[in-house]
Amino acid sequence: MSNETIHLVGGGLVGSLTAIYLAQRGFNVELYERRPDMRKASISAGRSINLVITSRGMRALAEVGLTDEALAIAIPCRGRMLHDVKGSTNFVPYGQKEHEVINSISRGDLNRLLLNKAESYSNVRIHFNQRCTAYDIDANQLTFQDEATQTKQTVHAQRVIGTDGSGSVLREALKHKEPSFQLSEDRHAYGYKELAILPAAGGGFKMEKNALHIWPRGDFMLMALPNIDGSFTVTLFYAHKGAQSFEQLTNEAELRAFFETTFPDVIPLIPDYAEQFFANPTGAMVTVKCAPWNYADKLLLLGDAAHAIVPFYGQGANCGFEDASAFARHLGSSNTPDWASIFKATAEERKPNADAIADMALANFIEMRATTADPKFQLKKEVGFELERRHAGKFIPRYSMVVFHPEIPYATAHKLGMAQDKLLDALTASATSISDIDWQQAEALVSNLAA
Amino acid sequence: MSNETIHLVGGGLVGSLTAIYLAQRGFNVELYERRPDMRKASISAGRSINLVITSRGMRALAEVGLTDEALAIAIPCRGRMLHDVKGSTNFVPYGQKEHEVINSISRGDLNRLLLNKAESYSNVRIHFNQRCTAYDIDANQLTFQDEATQTKQTVHAQRVIGTDGSGSVLREALKHKEPSFQLSEDRHAYGYKELAILPAAGGGFKMEKNALHIWPRGDFMLMALPNIDGSFTVTLFYAHKGAQSFEQLTNEAELRAFFETTFPDVIPLIPDYAEQFFANPTGAMVTVKCAPWNYADKLLLLGDAAHAIVPFYGQGANCGFEDASAFARHLGSSNTPDWASIFKATAEERKPNADAIADMALANFIEMRATTADPKFQLKKEVGFELERRHAGKFIPRYSMVVFHPEIPYATAHKLGMAQDKLLDALTASATSISDIDWQQAEALVSNLAA
Repeated sequence: MSNETIHLVGGGLVGSLTAIYLAQRGFNVELYERRPDMRKASISAGRSINLVITSRGMRALAEVGLTDEALAIAIPCRGRMLHDVKGSTNFVPYGQKEHEVINSISRGDLNRLLLNKAESYSNVRIHFNQRCTAYDIDANQLTFQDEATQTKQTVHAQRVIGTDGSGSVLREALKHKEPSFQLSEDRHAYGYKELAILPAAGGGFKMEKNALHIWPRGDFMLMALPNIDGSFTVTLFYAHKGAQSFEQLTNEAELRAFFETTFPDVIPLIPDYAEQFFANPTGAMVTVKCAPWNYADKLLLLGDAAHAIVPFYGQGANCGFEDASAFARHLGSSNTPDWASIFKATAEERKPNADAIADMALANFIEMRATTADPKFQLKKEVGFELERRHAGKFIPRYSMVVFHPEIPYATAHKLGMAQDKLLDALTASATSISDIDWQQAEALVSNLAA
Repeated sequence: MSNETIHLVGGGLVGSLTAIYLAQRGFNVELYERRPDMRKASISAGRSINLVITSRGMRALAEVGLTDEALAIAIPCRGRMLHDVKGSTNFVPYGQKEHEVINSISRGDLNRLLLNKAESYSNVRIHFNQRCTAYDIDANQLTFQDEATQTKQTVHAQRVIGTDGSGSVLREALKHKEPSFQLSEDRHAYGYKELAILPAAGGGFKMEKNALHIWPRGDFMLMALPNIDGSFTVTLFYAHKGAQSFEQLTNEAELRAFFETTFPDVIPLIPDYAEQFFANPTGAMVTVKCAPWNYADKLLLLGDAAHAIVPFYGQGANCGFEDASAFARHLGSSNTPDWASIFKATAEERKPNADAIADMALANFIEMRATTADPKFQLKKEVGFELERRHAGKFIPRYSMVVFHPEIPYATAHKLGMAQDKLLDALTASATSISDIDWQQAEALVSNLAA
């Protein structure tokens, strides 16, 4: 058991997981969270109410012993259910193996699970309603404002981990301290609006339960993820501005015209969609990149605080969990860790991977909203799976690398994925179905890929 | 005379110039400045104590009637005086025409001139010691904290221009309001340290007065600009970290070893350089890019608030002055301006130009610290000037376009400059002196350039 105390700022998914890793290694953890205790108050846990946990996230949850508890609150989805404008559906599996599923899970449920686990350790103390307002790196001081009482307190903090999300206050402090700090914050031209499909009368799901549903419409899309209570969380991804955008949906008549022509099969699923639409806020999405993530033996940023990404690969939480896992691995089992080296090694290992998934997530929006409905896209998926069968270990489709192969770093998946794109373009250039593929040419191309 | 009131946040160079433009067009101006009145208190006006004003800045000063006053406090520099490690010097002119000079000027003197001019209009009110702490765009409210008394006040502001510098509070407000806002803040790996060469005993300059002095040393450099009192402001540009960096200069012995081997001829000019070095702060440099710069008919960002750049082209203030001039041009002479259109047109005209000078400024650091001392660089300069003579109007060297040709937008200079680089590389590939140049080939290449 170490006498060292680590201050964690931010008790979201990545912060509470990091608290568990540290507690299990014997460190004292002081975890500060801006919001009230979500296990007592009925509040939204964050910007969106559900997400998917895939193999990278599951690996981290396994490391801290939460596999069963997490799976118990998740719904496995085996593929994408595509809905066309006429209401026809087409199911496209994510992978070809039984275990190749993604897990739809409530952000709030998962966060509560992690907080409960963290709090089960006697060396973890959680402070709610504490907004971090300042971090003086030189003085090792964190300042918090109590959101209920507005009183301020200053806390001595020798070692700080910043898991305070995309608007991180700790990143801001680092920016002013680190003279060559790099920071970009790119808000996406698209926003999102959440709607809810309620469970069927008498319980149960109104659509296929074990799928991520997509209504791809070229420039935009609607998406739905199942929840364990039988409901679906629906998200419209649409441009903020322009001819086809939220700007044009200012009243019920405009909204009804839009849904009736674009998503007619959704209307019976959400009878009060117009009411929900105008009651719910329009969310923004941001890609944040920065460097470095660490400062001496004092500060390490993890999760969205270091690298917020857009949600189109379902990897935001997974990437953050991988950060925490990498940190725990570098930390090892020493009672007297070399913090500066551990922070630096963690940051340097994770930075290229976070950049890679940030870029892949941006690119995947095009795939989801536009090309999933394209016959060529579906042919390439099929060819990719066939290559995976024929050349086991030599060809793993990019989506599978990202989602089902945590042993392949994001940066590697990104690089190999670009080579795969060229290969699949070449193979399918004059093909309209999988029977047109020249498998000898394919074999040669796959060999080149590996070389 | 309009009844409209414009709130300007930031009374630095660009803010005070913008106040004059607005005052001359009959608008009421409320100008808020964080610092005390620099005309009363003896304070540094900002991050660095001098700068150069070139044709773009001079054009704006001419528009508001300040040409003579500005030239009276400036020192024209005709070229770069290069100092090698042995103390030998080599003068490289900036242009080949009499008027092709850059004007070294004190930031404080220029700011005082602009504030005096602004205050000479009865429709301008200047509020000092007012730090803007918040801007509520929807409520049209600015909040200021008095830096002397700490009291806060809220001001109704229908129309706001943000000239509050690279750490702009108004940009931050816009970031949270504009859902697809783009922002990057890249702090340079190099920092700077200012030192002073005092006037000679009995007055006068210790080095050539009408030059910008450079000690290019490959990976870093020292620079000096003349001041009207006979002093020079010296700036060391050096990496923050690494084998050759400020990190390695932690005590007097290390510093003396560095100066004695690297800048031996500077030592007699600044006998107390070690004392100055450790007394003065190490400055950071940042490139900020954002989009959009405007919000409806409410807010326009100008100057560093919209586009902070590094100082290596001497264009920071010039670009900001061009912003203000473009805004005044779009504003025209209407008493009932269409503010939303004017803000948008100004932002859209200036954004590509600000991006271009930001990129050229980063690239010019390499030229200044490394290639100026390279014989090939000097040959290319000579060939460029000769092409300008032979092909008047068809070939203007990039440096001249940026610094002496305000009628050529930065974005155009950037684009043409890249083509010139290729042309000069080709022409000088096997040349060691200007007599080796094939002028027929040159003519053909220049014709292609224009096509």
